[in-house]
Amino acid sequence: MLAGVDPQGGNQVLQRVKSLIRDIPDFPKPGIVFKDITPLLSNGKAFGEVIGLMAELGKKHAPDCVVAVESRGFIFGAALAAHMGVGFVPVRKPGKLPYRTSRVEYALEYGTDSLEIHSDALGKGARALVVDDVLATGGTAAATIRLVEQQGAIALACLFFIELSFLGGRSKLGSCGVDALLHY
Amino acid sequence: MLAGVDPQGGNQVLQRVKSLIRDIPDFPKPGIVFKDITPLLSNGKAFGEVIGLMAELGKKHAPDCVVAVESRGFIFGAALAAHMGVGFVPVRKPGKLPYRTSRVEYALEYGTDSLEIHSDALGKGARALVVDDVLATGGTAAATIRLVEQQGAIALACLFFIELSFLGGRSKLGSCGVDALLHY
Repeated sequence: MLAGVDPQGGNQVLQRVKSLIRDIPDFPKPGIVFKDITPLLSNGKAFGEVIGLMAELGKKHAPDCVVAVESRGFIFGAALAAHMGVGFVPVRKPGKLPYRTSRVEYALEYGTDSLEIHSDALGKGARALVVDDVLATGGTAAATIRLVEQQGAIALACLFFIELSFLGGRSKLGSCGVDALLHY
Repeated sequence: MLAGVDPQGGNQVLQRVKSLIRDIPDFPKPGIVFKDITPLLSNGKAFGEVIGLMAELGKKHAPDCVVAVESRGFIFGAALAAHMGVGFVPVRKPGKLPYRTSRVEYALEYGTDSLEIHSDALGKGARALVVDDVLATGGTAAATIRLVEQQGAIALACLFFIELSFLGGRSKLGSCGVDALLHY
């Protein structure tokens, strides 16, 4: 049950939201069924409802900023930050941020990848809500938590639009709380 | 003067917003002074004011969706779409969108680049507001207008947070109206 949302109404909204997500088989590679959220995003009413419901989940942590990873994380992260009246802090691939950065490396299925944050983006003790579109294996979110904590800031919780529960990504996020609007 | 905004108050807000943008010399390459908007984004009050003021500029066109280019365009585009209660349609680099796409190529200083949109993202006659963070030389925005019009939709106007007027990008956008919150 979502705080501040009539459970019956909330469920009806979530059913409608789910009907606007389509499965794309074999994307980005064979054997993976990709959750395509673009039909939901293009529906103004449904997108607004999703942001409103995610804000309900997020505000119980009383964040003073949203930290989100490019590119799809920017969609939910920026809309949420503006809706909640808190700051927005981007995490990007190496070389994209123009000022001094801190970097973390994290393991992929094959090889490694890196993410960066501006070194001055989060003050010591800043209360950060980590936002992304989908929690899959959890590698990106775990790396983002490390970036936040390296700055002396607090990763209050991770908030996703969708959690792919069968991939077990939640187990990679340590003691950080995890919320998601939809679960598969 | 911004519609619906007290001109004195609006100007004071814009002065404060401008003070939160910093110049980064020689990024992404020597001789270019990059406008770093991340200090503004991380200030929740100022970011919210920017989205509110851009929504004032956008709503006079009565769009039914915002079309925005990854990655920084997603920050303003998604926050604006959610604020205005309209749909959000992403334009991405080739291979990133999971469903059937339409593509345009456009010229860079050296070589070409491409952008894609989902072929079913915009219905015929859809009223699209093209949003990005910065209008520089206009190549990306001109390509996005072409993508919108290829779908039979209407590119009502382009709306930017910042226009780098000295680069003359506006001249590349044809008859499409151009609005920006800040001008350099």
